Amino acid sequence: MIGRARMNNPPTIGSLLALLLMGVPLEAQAPPLPVPRTDPSGPAVTFDFPGMRVGVGEYEEGPTGTTVFYFPKGVKAATDVRGGAPGTLNADAVRLAYEAPMMQSVVFSGGSWYGLSAATGVANELKVMRAEQGQHDFIAGVLGAIIFDVGGRRFSRVTPDDRLGAAAVRSAREGWFPLGARGAGRFAMQGVFFLDGPLADASRTWAHSGQGGAFRQIGPTRIAVFTVVNALGAIVDRNGRVLRCRRNVATGDCPAISSLLKDHLARVQRRGGGTGPTGNTTLTLVVTNQKLPYADLQRLGVQVHTSMARAIQPFATEEDGDVLYAVTTDEVDNPSLPSIQLGAIASELAWDAVLNSAPVLPPTSPRTPTTLSAERLAESVGTFAFHGGGTLSVSTGATGLEARFTGDGRMYFAADRTYRLTPIAEDLFLVVGPAEDVIRFDRRAGRIVAITLNPGPWAQSANRGMPR
Amino acid sequence: MIGRARMNNPPTIGSLLALLLMGVPLEAQAPPLPVPRTDPSGPAVTFDFPGMRVGVGEYEEGPTGTTVFYFPKGVKAATDVRGGAPGTLNADAVRLAYEAPMMQSVVFSGGSWYGLSAATGVANELKVMRAEQGQHDFIAGVLGAIIFDVGGRRFSRVTPDDRLGAAAVRSAREGWFPLGARGAGRFAMQGVFFLDGPLADASRTWAHSGQGGAFRQIGPTRIAVFTVVNALGAIVDRNGRVLRCRRNVATGDCPAISSLLKDHLARVQRRGGGTGPTGNTTLTLVVTNQKLPYADLQRLGVQVHTSMARAIQPFATEEDGDVLYAVTTDEVDNPSLPSIQLGAIASELAWDAVLNSAPVLPPTSPRTPTTLSAERLAESVGTFAFHGGGTLSVSTGATGLEARFTGDGRMYFAADRTYRLTPIAEDLFLVVGPAEDVIRFDRRAGRIVAITLNPGPWAQSANRGMPR
Amino acid sequence: MIGRARMNNPPTIGSLLALLLMGVPLEAQAPPLPVPRTDPSGPAVTFDFPGMRVGVGEYEEGPTGTTVFYFPKGVKAATDVRGGAPGTLNADAVRLAYEAPMMQSVVFSGGSWYGLSAATGVANELKVMRAEQGQHDFIAGVLGAIIFDVGGRRFSRVTPDDRLGAAAVRSAREGWFPLGARGAGRFAMQGVFFLDGPLADASRTWAHSGQGGAFRQIGPTRIAVFTVVNALGAIVDRNGRVLRCRRNVATGDCPAISSLLKDHLARVQRRGGGTGPTGNTTLTLVVTNQKLPYADLQRLGVQVHTSMARAIQPFATEEDGDVLYAVTTDEVDNPSLPSIQLGAIASELAWDAVLNSAPVLPPTSPRTPTTLSAERLAESVGTFAFHGGGTLSVSTGATGLEARFTGDGRMYFAADRTYRLTPIAEDLFLVVGPAEDVIRFDRRAGRIVAITLNPGPWAQSANRGMPR
Amino acid sequence: MIGRARMNNPPTIGSLLALLLMGVPLEAQAPPLPVPRTDPSGPAVTFDFPGMRVGVGEYEEGPTGTTVFYFPKGVKAATDVRGGAPGTLNADAVRLAYEAPMMQSVVFSGGSWYGLSAATGVANELKVMRAEQGQHDFIAGVLGAIIFDVGGRRFSRVTPDDRLGAAAVRSAREGWFPLGARGAGRFAMQGVFFLDGPLADASRTWAHSGQGGAFRQIGPTRIAVFTVVNALGAIVDRNGRVLRCRRNVATGDCPAISSLLKDHLARVQRRGGGTGPTGNTTLTLVVTNQKLPYADLQRLGVQVHTSMARAIQPFATEEDGDVLYAVTTDEVDNPSLPSIQLGAIASELAWDAVLNSAPVLPPTSPRTPTTLSAERLAESVGTFAFHGGGTLSVSTGATGLEARFTGDGRMYFAADRTYRLTPIAEDLFLVVGPAEDVIRFDRRAGRIVAITLNPGPWAQSANRGMPR
Repeated sequence: MIGRARMNNPPTIGSLLALLLMGVPLEAQAPPLPVPRTDPSGPAVTFDFPGMRVGVGEYEEGPTGTTVFYFPKGVKAATDVRGGAPGTLNADAVRLAYEAPMMQSVVFSGGSWYGLSAATGVANELKVMRAEQGQHDFIAGVLGAIIFDVGGRRFSRVTPDDRLGAAAVRSAREGWFPLGARGAGRFAMQGVFFLDGPLADASRTWAHSGQGGAFRQIGPTRIAVFTVVNALGAIVDRNGRVLRCRRNVATGDCPAISSLLKDHLARVQRRGGGTGPTGNTTLTLVVTNQKLPYADLQRLGVQVHTSMARAIQPFATEEDGDVLYAVTTDEVDNPSLPSIQLGAIASELAWDAVLNSAPVLPPTSPRTPTTLSAERLAESVGTFAFHGGGTLSVSTGATGLEARFTGDGRMYFAADRTYRLTPIAEDLFLVVGPAEDVIRFDRRAGRIVAITLNPGPWAQSANRGMPR
Repeated sequence: MIGRARMNNPPTIGSLLALLLMGVPLEAQAPPLPVPRTDPSGPAVTFDFPGMRVGVGEYEEGPTGTTVFYFPKGVKAATDVRGGAPGTLNADAVRLAYEAPMMQSVVFSGGSWYGLSAATGVANELKVMRAEQGQHDFIAGVLGAIIFDVGGRRFSRVTPDDRLGAAAVRSAREGWFPLGARGAGRFAMQGVFFLDGPLADASRTWAHSGQGGAFRQIGPTRIAVFTVVNALGAIVDRNGRVLRCRRNVATGDCPAISSLLKDHLARVQRRGGGTGPTGNTTLTLVVTNQKLPYADLQRLGVQVHTSMARAIQPFATEEDGDVLYAVTTDEVDNPSLPSIQLGAIASELAWDAVLNSAPVLPPTSPRTPTTLSAERLAESVGTFAFHGGGTLSVSTGATGLEARFTGDGRMYFAADRTYRLTPIAEDLFLVVGPAEDVIRFDRRAGRIVAITLNPGPWAQSANRGMPR
Repeated sequence: MIGRARMNNPPTIGSLLALLLMGVPLEAQAPPLPVPRTDPSGPAVTFDFPGMRVGVGEYEEGPTGTTVFYFPKGVKAATDVRGGAPGTLNADAVRLAYEAPMMQSVVFSGGSWYGLSAATGVANELKVMRAEQGQHDFIAGVLGAIIFDVGGRRFSRVTPDDRLGAAAVRSAREGWFPLGARGAGRFAMQGVFFLDGPLADASRTWAHSGQGGAFRQIGPTRIAVFTVVNALGAIVDRNGRVLRCRRNVATGDCPAISSLLKDHLARVQRRGGGTGPTGNTTLTLVVTNQKLPYADLQRLGVQVHTSMARAIQPFATEEDGDVLYAVTTDEVDNPSLPSIQLGAIASELAWDAVLNSAPVLPPTSPRTPTTLSAERLAESVGTFAFHGGGTLSVSTGATGLEARFTGDGRMYFAADRTYRLTPIAEDLFLVVGPAEDVIRFDRRAGRIVAITLNPGPWAQSANRGMPR
Repeated sequence: MIGRARMNNPPTIGSLLALLLMGVPLEAQAPPLPVPRTDPSGPAVTFDFPGMRVGVGEYEEGPTGTTVFYFPKGVKAATDVRGGAPGTLNADAVRLAYEAPMMQSVVFSGGSWYGLSAATGVANELKVMRAEQGQHDFIAGVLGAIIFDVGGRRFSRVTPDDRLGAAAVRSAREGWFPLGARGAGRFAMQGVFFLDGPLADASRTWAHSGQGGAFRQIGPTRIAVFTVVNALGAIVDRNGRVLRCRRNVATGDCPAISSLLKDHLARVQRRGGGTGPTGNTTLTLVVTNQKLPYADLQRLGVQVHTSMARAIQPFATEEDGDVLYAVTTDEVDNPSLPSIQLGAIASELAWDAVLNSAPVLPPTSPRTPTTLSAERLAESVGTFAFHGGGTLSVSTGATGLEARFTGDGRMYFAADRTYRLTPIAEDLFLVVGPAEDVIRFDRRAGRIVAITLNPGPWAQSANRGMPR
């Protein structure tokens, strides 16, 4: 019997397979297995880096995802694990100063520790891919790391798994890296550190980020930096301004980081600091084709990783499980580019990558209130159960629609609090509050059957009716 | 289309599921998905350690397996990674001196790097199990490490995966740890270091080991050590004798390690050393319920891990990817047992565990030649294709049956070499050579349809006929 | 016999003592033993941090020095070694997660690896000091780290030693930390990374820094950060401007770091990068009295160390042997100040400390040319031998005084190059070139007997006459 | 005024120099500065290893010492720090996988953390030596580590210092390594772990060890292992027997380690374990001339260090501050000797080195009681003050001479306990007890003026009369 746990968690493949083998028809096995999507739309950075393929896999049902870097010829690798409570796969193997190209893939993933399953899934799929090429005894070297995009952040407990990793590496191709809320960065956030006061009030500062990348060629040397920014700190541009400080709009009114830090620490000085939310991470990959001895490659990683304290402030806190991998295909000599200069260039690329991890958003929120009839409002009244648990009860109050949330806390709604819903379009309402979240009422055959919170890359759905 | 790769590798679940969903009948999808087995027979150590459950999962199709230690209440953990090219999951998270019980499981597995998939599978299954208990946002902490039991060691490329880990943790229970060729130790070996001369001639020294465990209670303190011995070195008993030096029998005629080392190094001195086979590892878990600050727990791990150089010689070579985890449930105070004494006790338990990792074997090999008729011998003539690739051609020669191997090298047969097969029972032949491997001819409806190499825990099967 | 080596190196105490014991009069033993100075003038930061004493020792003969932090009651300590080719004493002992207050002192020093002698000197002196208090079996725990202030940077090879450390710890007192070119920061420099083109031309960017410190109290929590900045990168203020870009003046015309980096990397892109000078380091100490478990203390160190990438750019390169120690006296509980906020505050203090490490300098260089008589100029003609080797030959040329340098390269003078000397005051000449170094002709009894290069904290002296 | 502290501690050079400069005559400055001795007698291992020089320096006044390995051309180095509370100099610099020969010297020393001063002393002396050769800007790379030979072990607080290191490196020569109680091993001990019951009763197991070394050549490859054994565990031979179990004799009646461990742990099981004495360490240097990439060199160190758990049991406990350095001069290629075989050979050399670290001792203690006249006995009555503090009062009792100790505890005498002294020769008495220590009464002009405890390598002297 599939109980509440089954509702809140996707079925494991094993359990689904068992049901299939038992003859249970697919449609009876709710909820369906999430579907890997590997061809994301939206902005991407393109470049010419032969020998490196990038694949992303996403579960809309999360939303969450994984990003795979695949180097068919193998790379020499080093790591710089700086994080608190990091999640890593095989980082130990690249601490031993091996000069051999032992690793074939680096996999970043959402899903907290569960997401490392995507990395082992990549390994398993590489096993198959290599066997298809006649390399039956090939042992694939895969490095993995993850971000925390679950817990109080989204309703769904879907996390990247073996299947998603396999799909992502199968789809990997050269010359391309999708930016923003894609792959492992699908549900990334940033800036939580500056959250001050009750969570819901301050959640405007809890803005989405994503994954970014930047590339440069200097003579024969190619160098690229890719990063998934799920940082406690805020993204800062080269003018010292915070890049994003509101969840749903890309407004330019964010403060200078120096004043934001000053104000925040003054408050801490005055009345102590909150413990704040936890579970942040920035994942970074530095890739080059320049020949570098292991010692230089490792130092390159240290230099670049440290430099990111400029682009993300604060950085490398105990609540950031930061992991960097530095890899080289060891293909070209470039005596005119010492590794220290390569490190400085890569550090600037890392900053560029952090900046372009911020997803494309509208410049301002839709603030045009609409007037809807009482009949229309009454249509929205009901209880909506989020797929991962928690219900939103919509009712009519003195000033129009109101909503109250019940269930495990998520960042959108505080418990024991009534939110006013202001109509801004037919079937579209603004949740009144600093975060300016939006609720869309979804219809089937004219009838409201579900709601979508924040339609777009970070959509969360809830079906009408109490959870079964 | 399923090509040669598909024959040599098990189907991924994803691919199988796709076929199922496409309506392809199961029987058309050869080879079948390996079946997790979680209730092993044979010797086990039993003990009273509330709060720790042990599960093993095995694929006969490998043979290979995984061993899961599950601590529902969580444990404080530390690690001592000493190996060359180790394979680890989440070891970084337990290097940061956290005093909190952050980890729920330690997973050891066969399958080289692919086997880490069993550990992520455990995590995913714990996610489901916790959700079943209402803990929907629980993040399971799983530590993983693997041994190399593939490559030139067995024909099958089946490796532990997500499903096997899930099955193992689901089946985990208290008070029990199966010994020998079980779980992660299903296809472990030891003593390869002393291999001298051509592989096949010397392969007698390449003896199987497995997993071992030992437990002791001192006042309120419980302490146990579990180990999976896939070492380059040889297992040595407390009298300084090598425990096992032949692959298929547990003969007591093994030399003293001191003379074995002396002779070996004299040969190296005289004519240089071979590079030898690679890919060994000893995995170890030290578990206690005694309260230990992180620093003491980490030192306990160092002391025990180092002490194992007595029981396995040589130890911690560059070809051993050794990993130890030390964990405590932090439940009892025991001021009369300082951690250094606890370390000395655990070191002796570790030696006991290494010793009882050696599987039960017959004391001598079956050397009673039988005479079979020419007609009987003729029945055995044919070509037999191992599931993971490679064929053995059996023919009649001047002295009876002979066999020649074609394909990727495995430890049993050198290429370009003819092996005599001596009958020792109806349908049972000894492969003449130091390893004394055995071939059983298997019949269906009276007709020989397959062979089994070394029937027993390490059986490898080959079907009659050329590979498709 | 005292040869050239003896001239270039200070006598060891042993050798001097031997001479004394042999009855050789002191004045015959040139050069004299350098004299520890422990009462520096100039700016200092003052604060109230009971239980921490600071002492500085300097050798004018270097100039070089050492800075000692002394905690009579001991501190719990952690480290974050990020540097290339670092020089450390006992850092290993504080990696093992000990909760005990095992360390009594942290010692930063000039002199490259030789300077670690000051740290062992502190240990030896603490042995005496403790014995004076009746603690005869006390083992003093001293952490040490050093900066490179020798090589091509100054003429003298005098480096901090046992005696200097002993003098510094003996003089240590509470509530005070001298800023700028003091103690270990006596001959520190920064900004070398941006040196472009020939060393001498670009040496204006090679500006002196020193040691800085900052303190804050938040409720019962005291926290201070001290740093010795000898960085490859440039010091950057909170507005993104480079703080110092000329050696001998504190002009405000330095560029924004963003444009400096952009221009530099564009040059690298265009024509490759120089390998640049080497041997830089930033040393940092974070001190608090707040109770912190080891894990939190270590994370505090990581957070603060990483944050310094904002104040020094680039930072943590392979040419920076950066070392941070984080220590706590573990005296006060402050639940309202989580360690992550403490880390953010300490990171700002670290930035303040980097900024106030820059020594006080005149805002502009003395550019008022004076006209001197030919007779006066002729007085200056001669050869001047620097104490550590190298001679400057002053002659009269077409346009006035000229100088040429012979010997091991130092940053002031390129070989095979003639420098014009412009009189700016009686006996004071500007070396024409971007660095705007100054030479003072020193007289005894009216006669010019020596020169002083850059009178002030970084003075280098040369006596008239060829070296003996 | 020189107080009690001055009596217990040697004067610092600085203080002595100050007195000399003040004109205070040398003889008034008691106690005299300890005198470095660099030409030890006794057994040594000799070998042919061009490019490595060994020097030892000793202070009889300790006794304590230092051992210096000097590689004029530099070596590539790696480290394996396994110890609790280790004392190290510059180990961090050889963790970064540098392939360059950055280090010139490895220095092992007695004196606990104070002894690192010998290593910085070597650096300072190398600075002078290099300058004598015209290398004025040379920065000497010195690795250091120490053993604990103070505290409750000896009366004197003299520890190795700058001067001793300088003397040792000046005297270093090729082809030679003194064995036993020499250099850093001058006052080393072993086997303390098995001490059971009151310290003094059990102190027979607290036997002296020292430093050992072993060398082998395999084709062009030279390899040597040197070790200073100050282990908590006991030295074990290749037959599994404890090598030394009594302090003053080399009797062959020591138990098998297996039974010793079994008995000890049975006692622990029965009645808990004592906390035991602390402060042990085994220091090891592996040297080869074979070319080894850094990764292989580091692995060589791990393999050898781990292997020593056979020769010292238990090993690598939290009370052992073990440090190993592995270095190569990178001079010869030897493809026929893979690094793993080199590691196995070096591991056997390490065992040989541990075994020959045990000093030469008489096979049995002098048990021939002599009868002395009452007049003779009366001559011995008096109080004797050890140089480092503590007094022994000798009186006549019912059965002859008796002694009682007052002061900080040392291993020889328990407080509040009367020891019988049995005459075994003119002026020579056995302290009755398991340790069988010997007291010699020393005469000047016929009168007893002092005693020497255990004349020989570990002699401790006490002058007649109360301490001033």
